[in-house]
Amino acid sequence: MNKILVMQTDFGLVDGAVAAMYGVALKVDETLKIYDLTHDIPPYNIWEASYRLIQTVPYWPSGSVFVSVVDPGVGSNRKSVVAKTKQGQYIVTPDNGTLTHIKRLIGIEEVREIEEAVGRRKNTEHSYTFHGRDVYAYTGAQLAAGKLAFEQVGQRLEVEDIVEFADTRATIQDGVIRGSIDILDVRFGSLWTNVSRELFNQLGVEPKELVELSIFNGHLRIYQNQIVYGNTFADVNIGEIICYVNSMDHMAIAINQGNFAKAYNVGTQEPWHIEFRKLKK
Amino acid sequence: MNKILVMQTDFGLVDGAVAAMYGVALKVDETLKIYDLTHDIPPYNIWEASYRLIQTVPYWPSGSVFVSVVDPGVGSNRKSVVAKTKQGQYIVTPDNGTLTHIKRLIGIEEVREIEEAVGRRKNTEHSYTFHGRDVYAYTGAQLAAGKLAFEQVGQRLEVEDIVEFADTRATIQDGVIRGSIDILDVRFGSLWTNVSRELFNQLGVEPKELVELSIFNGHLRIYQNQIVYGNTFADVNIGEIICYVNSMDHMAIAINQGNFAKAYNVGTQEPWHIEFRKLKK
Amino acid sequence: MNKILVMQTDFGLVDGAVAAMYGVALKVDETLKIYDLTHDIPPYNIWEASYRLIQTVPYWPSGSVFVSVVDPGVGSNRKSVVAKTKQGQYIVTPDNGTLTHIKRLIGIEEVREIEEAVGRRKNTEHSYTFHGRDVYAYTGAQLAAGKLAFEQVGQRLEVEDIVEFADTRATIQDGVIRGSIDILDVRFGSLWTNVSRELFNQLGVEPKELVELSIFNGHLRIYQNQIVYGNTFADVNIGEIICYVNSMDHMAIAINQGNFAKAYNVGTQEPWHIEFRKLKK
Repeated sequence: MNKILVMQTDFGLVDGAVAAMYGVALKVDETLKIYDLTHDIPPYNIWEASYRLIQTVPYWPSGSVFVSVVDPGVGSNRKSVVAKTKQGQYIVTPDNGTLTHIKRLIGIEEVREIEEAVGRRKNTEHSYTFHGRDVYAYTGAQLAAGKLAFEQVGQRLEVEDIVEFADTRATIQDGVIRGSIDILDVRFGSLWTNVSRELFNQLGVEPKELVELSIFNGHLRIYQNQIVYGNTFADVNIGEIICYVNSMDHMAIAINQGNFAKAYNVGTQEPWHIEFRKLKK
Repeated sequence: MNKILVMQTDFGLVDGAVAAMYGVALKVDETLKIYDLTHDIPPYNIWEASYRLIQTVPYWPSGSVFVSVVDPGVGSNRKSVVAKTKQGQYIVTPDNGTLTHIKRLIGIEEVREIEEAVGRRKNTEHSYTFHGRDVYAYTGAQLAAGKLAFEQVGQRLEVEDIVEFADTRATIQDGVIRGSIDILDVRFGSLWTNVSRELFNQLGVEPKELVELSIFNGHLRIYQNQIVYGNTFADVNIGEIICYVNSMDHMAIAINQGNFAKAYNVGTQEPWHIEFRKLKK
Repeated sequence: MNKILVMQTDFGLVDGAVAAMYGVALKVDETLKIYDLTHDIPPYNIWEASYRLIQTVPYWPSGSVFVSVVDPGVGSNRKSVVAKTKQGQYIVTPDNGTLTHIKRLIGIEEVREIEEAVGRRKNTEHSYTFHGRDVYAYTGAQLAAGKLAFEQVGQRLEVEDIVEFADTRATIQDGVIRGSIDILDVRFGSLWTNVSRELFNQLGVEPKELVELSIFNGHLRIYQNQIVYGNTFADVNIGEIICYVNSMDHMAIAINQGNFAKAYNVGTQEPWHIEFRKLKK
């Protein structure tokens, strides 16, 4: 283990919840190197927790331990698990869908259920609510510190039994790609779709050419226009709309130096959809 | 000393004030391990600074040095001090009430006044306003680095003379607990009261039973209902109200996956109060 | 090199963009010590990026490497550079004005253009948009780790050719200082002006004396009053207005425990101006 511990929660940083997790981890091993993924996951939003993991985990060294606590079912019978990715990172999390993207896009080698007798701090019987601190951070720290081997975490579960969101892949038919809006690039209001670069390329649209974009809220078309497929924001003017390959290697839509989501009041996931259509020559 | 330095301020992270404190500390010793408690204490809110310390300090290793800068009286004759807790952590702070909860709930072993000639960077005579950087971060870094012994900080003060908020403990009488709302679990809108689990248990309400909760704004009762005392949020439905033991081992009130404080427009501290009453069988 | 890497962006911390940069850096060298300046630069605001650097860089040890990614021209032919300051810190940034304040106030010893073949991760040809992760963080990490010498970054450029904002220095004439409002101390709503303490002292106003302050929005005077020049906020009552020397050694204007910018709806830079005038005896 490389002693790297990375935390993600929906706790925010305005109170002491995250700092208490840090303290618990450093009491396990003062030489741990602790980092934050984000603590601004919208409260209870498991989908975003899953997405932020796939956005970041692959860039971290093998052996890094991620702790993700977005846990609307805390205290229920949902399981607490540690997953080992096919790239060698570990993820400590409630088994509630948080592992969806990691499982599909980079793969999970093995998953184990945390035995609370192992992974829980002593004398915390009454703190039913703060599993983030008393189970997840503590278990993650022990793993990262090399004081608890992955095999000792608890019994092995079947990878296929991990809780997942339904799979909604983008499709192409008759020269039309239909996809969904996975998430926003929040600060800039760009739409990040589930349309991969490879799928988009099947349309045969070249960089700097136009493509027709439609956005639907359920059956209602709320946007339709011909926009530029650019290699980079510099391919369009300031204020102009661009479709580009984002850092996840998927298609995204933005206003250059503006905020597309705010400008057109667009949301994510169901019931929002998008269509890309190649223009007729 | 373990070289761990933890910072809390009301400076926010949108400008460079905190990063300047980090730089000053790392110039003292590049091997320091610096962490954040929070920098989102509401401006000048000493009470919250005190509360966030008690929420976190006990989870950190003995020898950790906390720097807390919430300092509406900067430049006045309020003292700058270093307190050593009974658990062995250090807190560098203006003596303005920030030590209230730590003193009462875990205890302060010794407190010393910072002699500016010792704790202040050279050539900063004109920067009257930025004591956070030039006195507190600098002194904390020297302590954490082991370059300044606690005994060298300055003269010893009497622990009983530390500035404190008035003590407002919850009370029980005739089967009614009366307490205050100390603070919000900001992100989730839960009310954190000053009613300890031990005191609440004197009501004789068992987990999963109902208890009557009233909330008052001064003399005005703004909420009254029978709510579930749950071990965990899973004991109630989504959207239902629950009373539970929080991570501070005190009673808290929440809407499962909702925001109680926003829903009922409830605030903290004076003139807000709550009452728990056992139901008649 | 001291292995210290400090990051500044306008990406925010609500998604995984910054954490991906951290991961890329730690894959270069797991022993790097990574810190944040801020990630809350307003989107595309190069001026603030430049200001936050001068507010912090001088406090960090020589050899520290800063990565600043505020890059509205990403993908255009703006250059990517590494600057070495006269104090020995390094700054990795697009050459778009971000180096303005550092160049003027502490000086740049040498600047080199990043050769993409050197500074770019392998197999990232299709990720046109995320230079923050794939060029800047990667180059910064290599520098901080000592795996890439400054001389190897790429060809040397002329320091005088660095892109800069126009110089707008404060002036004094006939006992009136005229200056601009560089930036806000965001959390507290204080105005930070470009009037240095030295220039202000030429007015001959002593601490605790009054000075006349006018604020203009273009030609419109929106504020005029006699305010106290204080050494510290304690020199005025709560709610009173004070003019003081800020942590940048420049004159700032605040309401003690209030928010001047919100109270008077004042903005920064053009077309906002201020005037200080000595009172007639």
